[in-house]
Amino acid sequence: MSGQGRTNDPEGVRRRIVDAAYEAFVQRGYLATGMLEIRDMAAVSGGAMAHHFPAKRDLGLAVIRDRVADAVARTWIEPLDACADAPSAIDRIFAAIINELKRKGSVSGCPLNNMAMEIAAHDAGMREALDAVFLAWQQALRAKFKHDVKQGRAGDLHPDRLATLVIAAYSGAIAMAKARQNVQPLIDCRSELASLLAAHYRPGKRGGRRAD
Amino acid sequence: MSGQGRTNDPEGVRRRIVDAAYEAFVQRGYLATGMLEIRDMAAVSGGAMAHHFPAKRDLGLAVIRDRVADAVARTWIEPLDACADAPSAIDRIFAAIINELKRKGSVSGCPLNNMAMEIAAHDAGMREALDAVFLAWQQALRAKFKHDVKQGRAGDLHPDRLATLVIAAYSGAIAMAKARQNVQPLIDCRSELASLLAAHYRPGKRGGRRAD
Repeated sequence: MSGQGRTNDPEGVRRRIVDAAYEAFVQRGYLATGMLEIRDMAAVSGGAMAHHFPAKRDLGLAVIRDRVADAVARTWIEPLDACADAPSAIDRIFAAIINELKRKGSVSGCPLNNMAMEIAAHDAGMREALDAVFLAWQQALRAKFKHDVKQGRAGDLHPDRLATLVIAAYSGAIAMAKARQNVQPLIDCRSELASLLAAHYRPGKRGGRRAD
Repeated sequence: MSGQGRTNDPEGVRRRIVDAAYEAFVQRGYLATGMLEIRDMAAVSGGAMAHHFPAKRDLGLAVIRDRVADAVARTWIEPLDACADAPSAIDRIFAAIINELKRKGSVSGCPLNNMAMEIAAHDAGMREALDAVFLAWQQALRAKFKHDVKQGRAGDLHPDRLATLVIAAYSGAIAMAKARQNVQPLIDCRSELASLLAAHYRPGKRGGRRAD
């Protein structure tokens, strides 16, 4: 049996390391977190760490591609599919994030934006992995706006640019909320985005959760 | 004369240190920059560093209060005063930043947002100093919107919330531009903000550079 504890669940070990790293990178930052800390948090051996992630950068890439991309998909992309139109989805997403932050009582920021601001200047590969997450997010929003126009729910709008504005407003609002340790910037942006989107959409053509 | 070189211009020495630190913190980040690097960049003695900034945190606070606040004032607050109304000013500010980034050929990000995202989780005093800069920025925009309403240039708008949206959109757009190393997100947000603001302002009541 000796040694089996280390090797009988390599996928589970890898997952524990990536989970611990995600938690640490979001809370304290990528640069401020050491590999030894992550090893301790994940309760894995040095050999297992070195096997799965020879360098911190490999772990950074895994966190971006697995956990950060997944957080954006769950928080933003899936609710877009579940709601009848983009404005309902965006309003619901802001409300859910505001409620979650109020419940927690502190603002640690958006995993994607935290890592992007910190790492973009240091490592081109990680920067590109982060940009791919931003692009998937923007693509999902743009597709929803296009769909709304096609369905006759929305009139004249520029899907690409509007998608960028929504993501930028959210990203900036959470940066301000983090600096203030207060959700008010997100509340303000939620209201302003709702008014701005309402001006593009036809009254009576809006819906809540998708019925089809 | 011995020793005079070190002490005959304490203000100049302090300024050289803060300039070097601002450059390094914006380009590479606060956490990634060591005090020795800054000392070398500023070409000052260890004694002078220790005299002016006993701890890195003191230097972080000086950079925020002197240089970051000043960058926001020059880039955002002064042009607001120089233009006839908020939409003209905001459009001009975005255009200037986009042109400057195109000229440089790379996006290192907004000094305020870079430091806020990196430091907010680590140090309450620095977080508060960064929030004060965000608040001064928001206060200037809000005052301009209020002034425009009072002058009859703008109709129904919520100065507080709109100021937050503009700052958030800019902050998020520059984060996206940094991840992409491309100014397109700023170009998109510039257009969308211009349309959104135009809807609040009365045609014919808009102006360019302030005439009074």
